[in-house]
Amino acid sequence: MEPRLKVWVEAGDRLVLSDYRVQLLEVIAARGSLAEGAAALGLSYRRAWGKVREIEANLGRKLVESSAGGPGGGSSRLTEEGERLVACYNRFRQALTEYAAQEFERQFGAS
Amino acid sequence: MEPRLKVWVEAGDRLVLSDYRVQLLEVIAARGSLAEGAAALGLSYRRAWGKVREIEANLGRKLVESSAGGPGGGSSRLTEEGERLVACYNRFRQALTEYAAQEFERQFGAS
Repeated sequence: MEPRLKVWVEAGDRLVLSDYRVQLLEVIAARGSLAEGAAALGLSYRRAWGKVREIEANLGRKLVESSAGGPGGGSSRLTEEGERLVACYNRFRQALTEYAAQEFERQFGAS
Repeated sequence: MEPRLKVWVEAGDRLVLSDYRVQLLEVIAARGSLAEGAAALGLSYRRAWGKVREIEANLGRKLVESSAGGPGGGSSRLTEEGERLVACYNRFRQALTEYAAQEFERQFGAS
C-alpha cells in the first residue's frame, strides 16, 4: 500500500496554487516567455495567460511580468512575489510528500 | 492562504482507502449494519455493498463481515483487519492534516 496526496492552496476559498499552477509558473520562468512556457506544457497561449491572470486575481498579487513584443516577441518573467511563492510551494509540497511517506510507514507498518 | 489536502491510499495502483471509503466503513461499524450505514450516507445498499467489495478486492482482505438476515435483517461489522485499517488511516490522515497546517505556516509565513 502507498499513500497518495493531492495538494493545493486556496485564498478565500479560491484555488491559487497547485502542482499544475506552480509548474506553469516555473516553465514560464525557465523559458522566459509565456508563449514558450505554454507551448512546453501543450497549452494554448490564451489558456496559459488566462490561468496566470486567474491566479493573480484570486491572490490579489502580480506573479508574472511581461515586456511587450518587438520583432522577437515579448518576454515574461516571474515577479519577486511570484518567485517567492513558487519556492514556498515547492518546499511545502516536498516536505509534505516526505512526511506522508514516513508517517504512512509509521502508521501502517507492515500492513 | 490555506493549504488543502486530498489523501488516499492505493494498493497496486488501485484505490483502497480514502476519507469517503473510511467514512463508509466507520458508519457501517457504528450502525452495525451495511443497510443502515448506507442509508446514513444517502447511498443505496447496492452501491455501498459494491464499494466495500471493491475495497476488499483491491486490497485482497476482508474488511466487513455480515451475518444473514432473519426477521430483523442481517448485521454487519468490521473484521479485525477492517478496524485496524480504519484506525491506521485516521491516525495517518490526522497527522498529515496537522503537519500540513504547521509546515504551511512555516514555509509561507505571513504570505
